[in-house]
Amino acid sequence: MPARRGGGVPALLQAMEDEAVKRPPFAPPYLRAGKLLIAQTANILQFLGPRLRLVPRDHSARIWVHQLQLTVADLVDEVHDTHHPIASSLYYAQQKTEARRRARYLTGERIPKYLDYFERVLAAHRGTYAVGRTVTYVDLSLFQLLAGLRYAYPRTLRRLEAGLPRLVTLHERVCALPRIAAYLASPRRIAFNEEGIFRHYLELDRAGR
Amino acid sequence: MPARRGGGVPALLQAMEDEAVKRPPFAPPYLRAGKLLIAQTANILQFLGPRLRLVPRDHSARIWVHQLQLTVADLVDEVHDTHHPIASSLYYAQQKTEARRRARYLTGERIPKYLDYFERVLAAHRGTYAVGRTVTYVDLSLFQLLAGLRYAYPRTLRRLEAGLPRLVTLHERVCALPRIAAYLASPRRIAFNEEGIFRHYLELDRAGR
Repeated sequence: MPARRGGGVPALLQAMEDEAVKRPPFAPPYLRAGKLLIAQTANILQFLGPRLRLVPRDHSARIWVHQLQLTVADLVDEVHDTHHPIASSLYYAQQKTEARRRARYLTGERIPKYLDYFERVLAAHRGTYAVGRTVTYVDLSLFQLLAGLRYAYPRTLRRLEAGLPRLVTLHERVCALPRIAAYLASPRRIAFNEEGIFRHYLELDRAGR
Repeated sequence: MPARRGGGVPALLQAMEDEAVKRPPFAPPYLRAGKLLIAQTANILQFLGPRLRLVPRDHSARIWVHQLQLTVADLVDEVHDTHHPIASSLYYAQQKTEARRRARYLTGERIPKYLDYFERVLAAHRGTYAVGRTVTYVDLSLFQLLAGLRYAYPRTLRRLEAGLPRLVTLHERVCALPRIAAYLASPRRIAFNEEGIFRHYLELDRAGR
């Protein structure tokens, strides 16, 4: 619901600061599900997974999907912190020198290390998706991760993708899922931009160190 | 098991890199539980919680405890990154200038914001522990968090603690639990040091900005 109809960011912040909320989120995003407010992206996905049939029934598989999701979240954090190495409350322009230094390690060490790991995970069981033959929420996260990294660090990704055939194929498979394809073609799909987590700053995208 | 008897760091890394492991951890720490290797601290705690009776039975309470744990983990990450704002692979001495700049925001904005949030959570239900009358794993995490912050940022914590009476009381309660007290008095309790996550560097501990 947009802000002019009582929704949007004001409503989001209001619920967080409401004294009547006994279990308040620390920060967005959060999900309202009946009486529950559930925060932390990986926690939200773990809650939604069984309800949307995006996770297997098997307990150990669920632990594993959640573990992969937390690892995706760690890389997303590192990407965010690269344009905010000093403070989230400062603009990128105020921490550009530090960002440039940090980005060399992100593109030269960290992105390769994480993506090689996900490639190895995909190779380990030779399934269609990360955990087997059916799509799980972490496949959707890996799709978004690769899309975001391609936008933010195109030179780095061009250099790395030859070594990541399974991750690239997974991305294509997720794109082609009928409802994901419909979403991607709709106005609900917000284009990557320099106010999101995956930002393209040419000066940060070095093809290695 | 120590390294000289086939344990320690070499064994830890070996299991991570073993090609036969179909669900490898990205990084330590991880837990071996039967055939499972479970990584990501919050994921490990979520697995252990029911087994050690450190979480309520109620599903929504478990989601909430996990959410709090993920929020603790976020602050721990921010603390770690403050002495490693450029790269984990560099020594602190190689990124001291950036660390000093970042630490002003950590001590002036981030630590207060997180600790005020946890204080509000404790105030919201007036229970003995974070979630109610019985101890959960997130109480143990909050204990360790406060202990670590006091070690790393003593001046900052002295300034803040007057406004955090419930968090300070929770810390004392956890210390006094018989088995925690025994652990703290034993050699199993490793003293905080400058190779861990909570490091005391005098130059980073400013009493505000």
